Amino acid sequence: MRDVRVSLVGYGIVGHGVVEVLNRKKKVLREMGLDLKLVSVTDHTGTVFSEEGINAEKILGERTLQNVATSSMKGKEAIIAIDSDLVVEVTPTNIVHGQPGLGHMEAALSSGKHVVTSNKGPLVVAYSNLRKLAEDNGVMLKFEATVGGVMPLISLVERTLVGNTIYGIRGIFNGTCNYILTRMAEEGIPYTHALSEAQDLGIAEADPSYDVEGVDTAGKVVILANSLFDMNVKYSDMNVTGITGVTSEALALAKKRGYVIKLIGDVPALTVRPTLVPIGSPIAVAGTLNSAAIYTDISGTITVTGLGAGSIETASAILSDIISIYRTKRIDAIF
Amino acid sequence: MRDVRVSLVGYGIVGHGVVEVLNRKKKVLREMGLDLKLVSVTDHTGTVFSEEGINAEKILGERTLQNVATSSMKGKEAIIAIDSDLVVEVTPTNIVHGQPGLGHMEAALSSGKHVVTSNKGPLVVAYSNLRKLAEDNGVMLKFEATVGGVMPLISLVERTLVGNTIYGIRGIFNGTCNYILTRMAEEGIPYTHALSEAQDLGIAEADPSYDVEGVDTAGKVVILANSLFDMNVKYSDMNVTGITGVTSEALALAKKRGYVIKLIGDVPALTVRPTLVPIGSPIAVAGTLNSAAIYTDISGTITVTGLGAGSIETASAILSDIISIYRTKRIDAIF
Repeated sequence: MRDVRVSLVGYGIVGHGVVEVLNRKKKVLREMGLDLKLVSVTDHTGTVFSEEGINAEKILGERTLQNVATSSMKGKEAIIAIDSDLVVEVTPTNIVHGQPGLGHMEAALSSGKHVVTSNKGPLVVAYSNLRKLAEDNGVMLKFEATVGGVMPLISLVERTLVGNTIYGIRGIFNGTCNYILTRMAEEGIPYTHALSEAQDLGIAEADPSYDVEGVDTAGKVVILANSLFDMNVKYSDMNVTGITGVTSEALALAKKRGYVIKLIGDVPALTVRPTLVPIGSPIAVAGTLNSAAIYTDISGTITVTGLGAGSIETASAILSDIISIYRTKRIDAIF
Repeated sequence: MRDVRVSLVGYGIVGHGVVEVLNRKKKVLREMGLDLKLVSVTDHTGTVFSEEGINAEKILGERTLQNVATSSMKGKEAIIAIDSDLVVEVTPTNIVHGQPGLGHMEAALSSGKHVVTSNKGPLVVAYSNLRKLAEDNGVMLKFEATVGGVMPLISLVERTLVGNTIYGIRGIFNGTCNYILTRMAEEGIPYTHALSEAQDLGIAEADPSYDVEGVDTAGKVVILANSLFDMNVKYSDMNVTGITGVTSEALALAKKRGYVIKLIGDVPALTVRPTLVPIGSPIAVAGTLNSAAIYTDISGTITVTGLGAGSIETASAILSDIISIYRTKRIDAIF
């Protein structure tokens, strides 16, 4: 049995999902020989710590840790002080300066802890530094959940398609934009109506600009470019157009010709823009789904689709990364 | 550097693809630390053998090995006699008795050689026996290429989605049927016209019954049911309807209501039948593509699509299986 002590930093929607999934999958993981023990959870109000593993039921009902914290430690302080093997970083993202996640990841990697994250900001801002820090400390940095939600995109490219040359990746990386464009096309309604509907359903934020201006998609393209294509690009290298200028007339015209309009991110083109996609194309998925077509030399084009967001779904991508760390840890010894 | 001696049995379309892909990827694989040496190729006319590795250029121009064979050994005899670590079995499939592939695989596994195959028949007929034989001899049996061509379906479920409970898998597992149904829907032409077109293009066989009656799809469902769902089913447990009864009127009516008709295989339902699928659904892909939706508890629904056939593409799935054997060989020691 492999014992792994996990610290969780960030206790918002995704953090709650992580606690729930680790709890729900405890038995299955033990049957595989992996004993994941959640020893601490930290948010902006403090830390819950338990040497024996935190009882999920005791904290899942709490929106923050304010009433259950066993220590006032926060952020880096908690990460360094607590004896754990792996840090799951899921604090709110900021793709301009990457904080507070960037500092958290640096602290974790520097103290020899693996990092698994759904937090795009630090990777957009400082991928190569974080990567180097992980290598220097002999630990892993895994971030499948930052790109396209539950689509196992990075794992597909790095593991299953490992013998392939990857020419490019194109797809839908933002469920909010996809929902709005899908509704506009289906109902012939204008952008503002579809946005309001998405906001009412909790699919779009009150301030939707991060999604609808293409910022979120562009951040994901930067992460893919740096991690899978070794491109060393910054956000400012991206050419980005969001969906606010797409009209229902354009969508109707496209439909008549057998197309849909989708917000497509493209590596290595480093573009995000509304794009005509043939109906029936594997990336032309509807609703809040994400999709990614991977263009390869010997496997042709492989496309994968999945939910772009969701608390449990994002947590499942995090769990998959955690498992892969302990599954692949000794691969270097073989290859 | 890990040296692996590979024997190839079967030298038809897929066999040629395997020789080409192993040759084309030799350098990349060596950079990964894996030295794959193709020491023998066997077909119904004899065997080419080379201790140092066969020169791909010398045999790729030959349709059979008749003019280049260095030995008259065939089938099981060659498999047992030649010193290799891994056998790639790609002889023509037969899903009634599984021969000659079944005998080849039994011989290879019994002599302690890994088996990687695209040959459905032996797995449909005798999955649990082959599985047991592999376990008893401490070797692996890998068959990603038998199900859905290049879609990395088995690898996705067994590796990336490993923490998930899989509720079911539904999808399009036959590119010929999908091509015919797509053309009928697009052009409003009857089944017989679309079939003729597919035959002219080499997408359908002169005797198309294996594809259009749903036999091929049903065989793949049997393999998925046995390998991923531990169901221990036989071909006769399947409930199968092909596409010969689908009319262009039905397709037109479906389209008007926002649907396409696709030949869908379903595990664990054990059905193959023409099914209404909403346009925009991730599995509603067009042309010769295959698709598979994997229904899970914590990752939601993940869909993967890719080419259903093709010499190089099938060989790429075989290569991926080969790599995974040497990547995952020591996992048991960790878990």
